[in-house]
Amino acid sequence: MGFIEQAAAIVGSAQVLTGSDIARYVDDPTGAYHSAPLCVVRPGSTREVSDLMALAYGMGQVVVPVSGNTGVSGGTFNEGAVMLSVERMNAVREVNASARTATVEAGVILDRLRDAADDAGLVFPVVFGARGSAMVGGILSTNAGGSNVLRYGNTRAQCLGIEVVLADGRVMDLMTALHKDNSGYDLRDLMIGAEGTLGIITAAVMKLSPKPAHTVTAMLAPVSLDAALTVLNRLQAASGGAVEACEYMPRSYIERQLAQIAGAREPFDAPHEVNVLVELAGDAGLSELFEDVLGAALEEGLIADAVIAQNDTQRAAMWERRESAAEVTLATTPALMGDIALPVDRLSDFFAAMRDRLSKIEPKAQETCVAHLGDGNIHYVAYSEANDPDLKIRLSEAMEGLVADMRGSFSAEHGVGLYKLGSMERHKNPVALDVMRSIKTALDPKGILNPGKVIPA
Amino acid sequence: MGFIEQAAAIVGSAQVLTGSDIARYVDDPTGAYHSAPLCVVRPGSTREVSDLMALAYGMGQVVVPVSGNTGVSGGTFNEGAVMLSVERMNAVREVNASARTATVEAGVILDRLRDAADDAGLVFPVVFGARGSAMVGGILSTNAGGSNVLRYGNTRAQCLGIEVVLADGRVMDLMTALHKDNSGYDLRDLMIGAEGTLGIITAAVMKLSPKPAHTVTAMLAPVSLDAALTVLNRLQAASGGAVEACEYMPRSYIERQLAQIAGAREPFDAPHEVNVLVELAGDAGLSELFEDVLGAALEEGLIADAVIAQNDTQRAAMWERRESAAEVTLATTPALMGDIALPVDRLSDFFAAMRDRLSKIEPKAQETCVAHLGDGNIHYVAYSEANDPDLKIRLSEAMEGLVADMRGSFSAEHGVGLYKLGSMERHKNPVALDVMRSIKTALDPKGILNPGKVIPA
Ligand SMILES: Cc1cc2nc3c(=O)[nH]c(=O)nc-3n(C[C@H](O)[C@H](O)[C@H](O)COP(=O)(O)OP(=O)(O)OC[C@H]3O[C@@H](n4cnc5c(N)ncnc54)[C@H](O)[C@@H]3O)c2cc1C
Ligand SMILES: Cc1cc2nc3c(=O)[nH]c(=O)nc-3n(C[C@H](O)[C@H](O)[C@H](O)COP(=O)(O)OP(=O)(O)OC[C@H]3O[C@@H](n4cnc5c(N)ncnc54)[C@H](O)[C@@H]3O)c2cc1C
Repeated sequence: MGFIEQAAAIVGSAQVLTGSDIARYVDDPTGAYHSAPLCVVRPGSTREVSDLMALAYGMGQVVVPVSGNTGVSGGTFNEGAVMLSVERMNAVREVNASARTATVEAGVILDRLRDAADDAGLVFPVVFGARGSAMVGGILSTNAGGSNVLRYGNTRAQCLGIEVVLADGRVMDLMTALHKDNSGYDLRDLMIGAEGTLGIITAAVMKLSPKPAHTVTAMLAPVSLDAALTVLNRLQAASGGAVEACEYMPRSYIERQLAQIAGAREPFDAPHEVNVLVELAGDAGLSELFEDVLGAALEEGLIADAVIAQNDTQRAAMWERRESAAEVTLATTPALMGDIALPVDRLSDFFAAMRDRLSKIEPKAQETCVAHLGDGNIHYVAYSEANDPDLKIRLSEAMEGLVADMRGSFSAEHGVGLYKLGSMERHKNPVALDVMRSIKTALDPKGILNPGKVIPA
Repeated sequence: MGFIEQAAAIVGSAQVLTGSDIARYVDDPTGAYHSAPLCVVRPGSTREVSDLMALAYGMGQVVVPVSGNTGVSGGTFNEGAVMLSVERMNAVREVNASARTATVEAGVILDRLRDAADDAGLVFPVVFGARGSAMVGGILSTNAGGSNVLRYGNTRAQCLGIEVVLADGRVMDLMTALHKDNSGYDLRDLMIGAEGTLGIITAAVMKLSPKPAHTVTAMLAPVSLDAALTVLNRLQAASGGAVEACEYMPRSYIERQLAQIAGAREPFDAPHEVNVLVELAGDAGLSELFEDVLGAALEEGLIADAVIAQNDTQRAAMWERRESAAEVTLATTPALMGDIALPVDRLSDFFAAMRDRLSKIEPKAQETCVAHLGDGNIHYVAYSEANDPDLKIRLSEAMEGLVADMRGSFSAEHGVGLYKLGSMERHKNPVALDVMRSIKTALDPKGILNPGKVIPA
């Protein structure tokens, strides 16, 4: 009996999909990868995941875990693999408001976890454009960032415990809800961000945070990127670190957004080069404090214009502008898609130098970006109509060279997947790569879990 | 040539200690372990550490890294090993105030890092009784906790990048200062807390935090542990999470402290069962807010007495009472030394149930503790004059059974070392233990780095 038949005996034949039923699993949001899996299996419990992995291990069958399939690094791409979707394991098992934890299964959609927290008077702070589809298993496996990292840290910082099924089907139960637990190696953090190459995350205990009573959201037009950082620092100092998000959008992005998104509007009466969405959350005194800092910044000429959201509709519209970034930037296939992190004080330098390099490599190229400004995390995108196969590589190397010179990272939050394997090869410490290989071999000796991802061969 | 001669060729013979020169490396603070190393080597650079490890690897010579030697789990105990001390690698290489980072070598003493941060107008928040001796390499390797975890997290949460020398001498450079960096497996967090069994930490980039303008320190006498937690929650809510420390000391501890420490004083005019040291840090409004919460708590009968520190001397005296805990509790050798973490709402239950078990196992036993209350982290200590060899094991099992029932951890912050190997065997998930063994073998195939620690055989 083949894998499909035996898997059907574990999960039921309705949960082993082939043919046209797998259409929604095979394409990724970037349009760059099109998979051709053997089948998609949809287990309903940790036990079933365990049985499936034991089966796959015995047969040497490659398995690629998938949650929301919103990853943008080709992490779920495969040919001939079994795609193991955790989407049916979608119970919010418990929200403990006094301990501020949520125990959830891997298939819980991010927005559902956010809503469950909200219902308990708390927040789950991970947020980004794909929050309606990305799932707990995926955000943990990519250690997703998003717009609130500045205040709350990335997904890793929100996780207290996990349950993982290993390559051979053994279940590793690390479902603790404790804030202090030094009992051996930190296997939780090893599994988080491993992009499905070391195990399948089936459940997690996530940390929730107190819900601030009051939120202020605004669009600012600082006169320069450095002016934007000055205003950000002042807001942080005045509010004791209450800035939740600080998202940069250049004019080039605004224009693309206006062109791509039906109903999109200009953020200000006049166009500005630097557009920043800023959000603070705290107590009722926040609005006044915000207006004080803003007033001073306007007076000093640091900001050219500012609009404060007056209600939820206006707030939502501001966020919609930012959260449509993937749709906007991927409308045309980019020649370069960067997800880099830099020391915050090098951002202006980077843009100037990159513009220079870009124009030398391909004078007709166009560039745009969105950036989580407070983290120094830029999603830099370049487009070219030239159909030069070398161009992508040259653009990547130009960007990564700059990033390395500035002691930044070529991979800030989207993960490595397939897309950044070359960058790992060129820029990651070679000893670290060797250690990763040793760990991969130790935990997945047959190489059946998402092989060929994260670590260059 | 033996190891000693060849090591001398690397570090100079003055830096290879034997005989009476090694006295201060062989005893641990608990008095439970007395080592008999082959020698102590004191490299002065990462390069020398690397050469020493390549030498040891070639010879199959066991190496035990040591920093301040203040660990309380027997982590540096050995017979016949080379103790590799990083104490001479003690440069604070850089403090970057605007990026809020400090780049330090592993031998920098915790208090020196705290002072360096302070000089730059920032804080390095890790703090505990051994801060004058513990070093960066040690606090990272044990993922030390301490009194400020409530607000800032443990040592892991303060670390952005590390440099590690592997068992065979290869240097793994992960010295990033970035807040977002998803470039492969999280090897940094794997090395942190590994207690010297996976590599030798030689340098690190540590995160610094903004220095609050204003600090309020007080001793409270809540009428019960639950009343203490209620007051803590109110202080957190009123101040937006500005509580830096909340340290519990029962009457039994106060009495031991008065008996052991010259010049020690009663915290209050009258004796109280529950004594709590609380510290908040924030802006100038804090004192008023604190007094409001306190006033209400006194009025409602949640607190029986309170003393607020009026100056640095009074504040220091309050901290001295808490920070002498190791000296106080280890003055007599304990029959049980617990470092457990519990869900905060189970603390009272734990104490009641533990008292019950203790009196059944050994009616004449005495108990005391100190606790980082906000983290649910209790350093529970029991003493017995009975010289029953089984007693320690029975007491451990009684405590650990309770902890397991309450879904707590048998190892909160001091690490496993040798002392908690049995607990790991009994209570850690067996699959997790297997994964740890695989990783240990993959990274240290000859088993020369601090063998026999952390993972039960
Ligand atoms: C519109 C849009 C906006 C985005 N914005 C951001 C952003 O701001 N910040 C950011 O960080 N990312 C962002 N992303 C990228 C993406 O959403 C995240 O990487 C997300 O975390 C992926 O979650 P997912 O559930 O879709 O995972 P998937 O795409 O299903 O999987 C991602 C990777 O994890 C592995 N995996 C999935 N589930 C499991 C599991 N249960 N166990 C083990 N491995 C598993 C997969 O094999 C794959 O390698 C965005 C994507 C889109 C489309
Ligand atoms: C008075 C007192 C109070 C204490 N209070 C607390 C507290 O509140 N919270 C807390 O968490 N701990 C506390 N401790 C325990 C202890 O101080 C901590 O564990 C501390 O982090 C150890 O640091 P160290 O430099 O002394 O490490 P060491 O004792 O030298 O080593 C500890 C472990 O790490 C390994 N190691 C040391 N250096 C390196 C290196 N460079 N690379 C790799 N491995 C290395 C050693 O092999 C050993 O296994 C206390 C101890 C005392 C004596």
